[in-house]
Amino acid sequence: MKMKHIKKIAEEGIWGSGYVQLWDFSHANLSEETRVEAVATVASICYGRPARDAKKLVERLWTESGGLPSSAFEFVRDGRSPGIEDSLRNNPQLATYENDPGETKEELVKRHRASIATFRLKVPIFVARQIMRHRQFSYQELSRRYTDDRRVPPEFLGPEKSEVGTAGIGLFQLAYTMEKQIYRLLLDSNVRAEIARAVLGTGLYTELWMMGDQEAWANYFALRLDPHTQKEHRELAQAMRNLLEECQPKLAI
Amino acid sequence: MKMKHIKKIAEEGIWGSGYVQLWDFSHANLSEETRVEAVATVASICYGRPARDAKKLVERLWTESGGLPSSAFEFVRDGRSPGIEDSLRNNPQLATYENDPGETKEELVKRHRASIATFRLKVPIFVARQIMRHRQFSYQELSRRYTDDRRVPPEFLGPEKSEVGTAGIGLFQLAYTMEKQIYRLLLDSNVRAEIARAVLGTGLYTELWMMGDQEAWANYFALRLDPHTQKEHRELAQAMRNLLEECQPKLAI
Amino acid sequence: MKMKHIKKIAEEGIWGSGYVQLWDFSHANLSEETRVEAVATVASICYGRPARDAKKLVERLWTESGGLPSSAFEFVRDGRSPGIEDSLRNNPQLATYENDPGETKEELVKRHRASIATFRLKVPIFVARQIMRHRQFSYQELSRRYTDDRRVPPEFLGPEKSEVGTAGIGLFQLAYTMEKQIYRLLLDSNVRAEIARAVLGTGLYTELWMMGDQEAWANYFALRLDPHTQKEHRELAQAMRNLLEECQPKLAI
Amino acid sequence: MKMKHIKKIAEEGIWGSGYVQLWDFSHANLSEETRVEAVATVASICYGRPARDAKKLVERLWTESGGLPSSAFEFVRDGRSPGIEDSLRNNPQLATYENDPGETKEELVKRHRASIATFRLKVPIFVARQIMRHRQFSYQELSRRYTDDRRVPPEFLGPEKSEVGTAGIGLFQLAYTMEKQIYRLLLDSNVRAEIARAVLGTGLYTELWMMGDQEAWANYFALRLDPHTQKEHRELAQAMRNLLEECQPKLAI
Repeated sequence: MKMKHIKKIAEEGIWGSGYVQLWDFSHANLSEETRVEAVATVASICYGRPARDAKKLVERLWTESGGLPSSAFEFVRDGRSPGIEDSLRNNPQLATYENDPGETKEELVKRHRASIATFRLKVPIFVARQIMRHRQFSYQELSRRYTDDRRVPPEFLGPEKSEVGTAGIGLFQLAYTMEKQIYRLLLDSNVRAEIARAVLGTGLYTELWMMGDQEAWANYFALRLDPHTQKEHRELAQAMRNLLEECQPKLAI
Repeated sequence: MKMKHIKKIAEEGIWGSGYVQLWDFSHANLSEETRVEAVATVASICYGRPARDAKKLVERLWTESGGLPSSAFEFVRDGRSPGIEDSLRNNPQLATYENDPGETKEELVKRHRASIATFRLKVPIFVARQIMRHRQFSYQELSRRYTDDRRVPPEFLGPEKSEVGTAGIGLFQLAYTMEKQIYRLLLDSNVRAEIARAVLGTGLYTELWMMGDQEAWANYFALRLDPHTQKEHRELAQAMRNLLEECQPKLAI
Repeated sequence: MKMKHIKKIAEEGIWGSGYVQLWDFSHANLSEETRVEAVATVASICYGRPARDAKKLVERLWTESGGLPSSAFEFVRDGRSPGIEDSLRNNPQLATYENDPGETKEELVKRHRASIATFRLKVPIFVARQIMRHRQFSYQELSRRYTDDRRVPPEFLGPEKSEVGTAGIGLFQLAYTMEKQIYRLLLDSNVRAEIARAVLGTGLYTELWMMGDQEAWANYFALRLDPHTQKEHRELAQAMRNLLEECQPKLAI
Repeated sequence: MKMKHIKKIAEEGIWGSGYVQLWDFSHANLSEETRVEAVATVASICYGRPARDAKKLVERLWTESGGLPSSAFEFVRDGRSPGIEDSLRNNPQLATYENDPGETKEELVKRHRASIATFRLKVPIFVARQIMRHRQFSYQELSRRYTDDRRVPPEFLGPEKSEVGTAGIGLFQLAYTMEKQIYRLLLDSNVRAEIARAVLGTGLYTELWMMGDQEAWANYFALRLDPHTQKEHRELAQAMRNLLEECQPKLAI
């Protein structure tokens, strides 16, 4: 899938293999075509690769979860009503820009950027767990269930030598090496992959999309830049805020 | 803390060390006293033990998260408006029954039971991760950050021999034993516990409170009793639904 | 087998689970009966338990190794010609005391004690490997091939905390725990035990008999009390020499 | 050290990384110069590399073990009296061929080849342990104490897939990977290498020289080609015998 409307704006690496990517979804609701691109882009994170036929995927996702639309449809929002409850998923009546041209396209895009920010993150599970406690955001996460380990091999967060010392680094490597080997042995013994993964530590990297409006980000930064938050999560929040300050300063409150 | 108003109704064991407990929070909003008991009961899961001074704890929690109330206040709800948005946390104007006796106490309790169900669960992290994707519920989870490992030692889900065979069982034990030993070695090396835990597999048991209204439960069961859901999560959902059928049949849709 | 003629003289513990036992084999060559007791005592170390029928065992051992007598017959020696080449194994013509009473029994015993010393040791494999480079001694070692692991469970040398620190102790325990678990998993997978044991570290304790004449001991102590010898072997040699000084001073040169 | 007199005759690989090399030491006792080459060749196995100054090394080795010559001097033998007791180490009066030309050089060499065979082997420790129970041979073994792990990195015998299955292979790899990592961690913690190696399994490859006369080899093959001998040792003995049959048939009895 060649992306025309949904674009990456900026990117920062973090902790070796992690990343923080700021994306622009301001064109997501322009037309049926841009909606398909937006939803397929978000949903394909589950599979660890782009969709082969975006349109078909999006059709299928509309009745995915017990007949309800996939949460990928929450990533189609309109800057005029940026909340999760007015996303395409929760408001199927949401008009595209084409059908409802109350503003110029430029105004619409500008408003979207002032009220909604969207990140794609690669972070360890223990950080993702804390992120996903924030219920004001829309999320879509890589699913190892639908992703071939050969395409997205298990990778783990190794802490910094300056913090844990040579011995600490070695212990983390030992644990991670062993976990990957035992995981592989379990798969070779025909144990279900989804249960075999129970041996992989929460330092395992996962990937996720995260979209929120101004209020969601304000709450998030208030909490996650606070010194009581775990160091890794603070570092992530700071990296996200830095990108917003640069590209969408109205959201970096 | 001796509990007078908040009560466990029923309990089922699951997968060896796990459990599913159905609790009655119908008295949570009767008075200031019952609110304190409800909030302290929920919040104390974070610490792995009952609060010493419930009133003080609850006062502190009111401005916990960057000045906002802890999500434990979401467990004080009124059966007449059972949604999360009308919980004490999100609606500080919520009247107690004492101040707003529009119904008899019996009616109120009955209505609560017909519209809200509350579970305390002990499940592996990989199941908790899936549960917490459901944003219509209120949650409070054990925090290993605030819980002494000696009080709540790390325990892991071991799959059944009938499924993974003797060799499979042995591999899981090997992984878990090793993870616990390396975790211990990291702590002995003064590595921060919250990062050392990155080596513990997602088979690690956690504990959580989960409260939802009728709609939340309907969506949850539609999705999690579906054959596409991972076996362990289906087993859990079935166990929860069984308890509801027995004790709060209106919610076991 | 109740022992009447072959006796333990003294014993010292070493490194937690190890031991150094000094034994008296001066009566080994008095008669056919004492020979049987001596050979069966030595040989039964292979099996990790006393022989059920000593006489039968000894008969079988006479043509054990490709038709040759077992080295257990080297432990029947006469103080008048204490070298390994004049042991019963290498000199089948060796007369018992009964048949060749050139001395009083007391003289014979005294002479034996002045010229031959016999130890039973429990030491890690890496020490046993160094011991057995000394070809002037007779040896008989526990054979895990013939010994049930449940009777003699694998045990490992853990170094002292004062030397390797808490972290070091933890790493050794981690390695040993894991080796025992993988060994068990290999056995459960029907891998030959003798090859599965390849995963067990050389810190694994073994047990052995060791008999030598004065010259053998003189060479041994010259080499193994030397500061160039590995610390553990020096500690062992010192413990052996201490027992000799006390009980057979002529051999503690 | 460029070798002129001591030569490898034939070589076979075994079990992946192992080897069986047949060497020709028939020129070892021709002169002082050939003696130096023979002793230095054998002794340098301890260090995992050729000696820089062979002559100096050999001088030092003459009073190595508590004032006694190193066992490397046992590899200088004369075909007319091929036993270990008449080697240069045990009989310092042994004349070189130059000083005692009772035979032509060709006769001497021929006689040596008919009565003495010398191997260099790379085998796991558990096989080396069994080999070294045969006291009629001369041995010299790689010493990890004097060998840099980077020059001779730890390698382990992995059993064949056809015997232990995919799961078995995986378990051996898991054990060996972990042992190497923990060994490395112990070294990084400044634990003595010689004690840290206690965590390495007896599947660890070692290298050794082994020289014996006709009687020694006859006993060895009688015992080690016997079906009661462990499979790996039988395979080794068979490989050695094959090389002898081809190159020194008088010793392949």
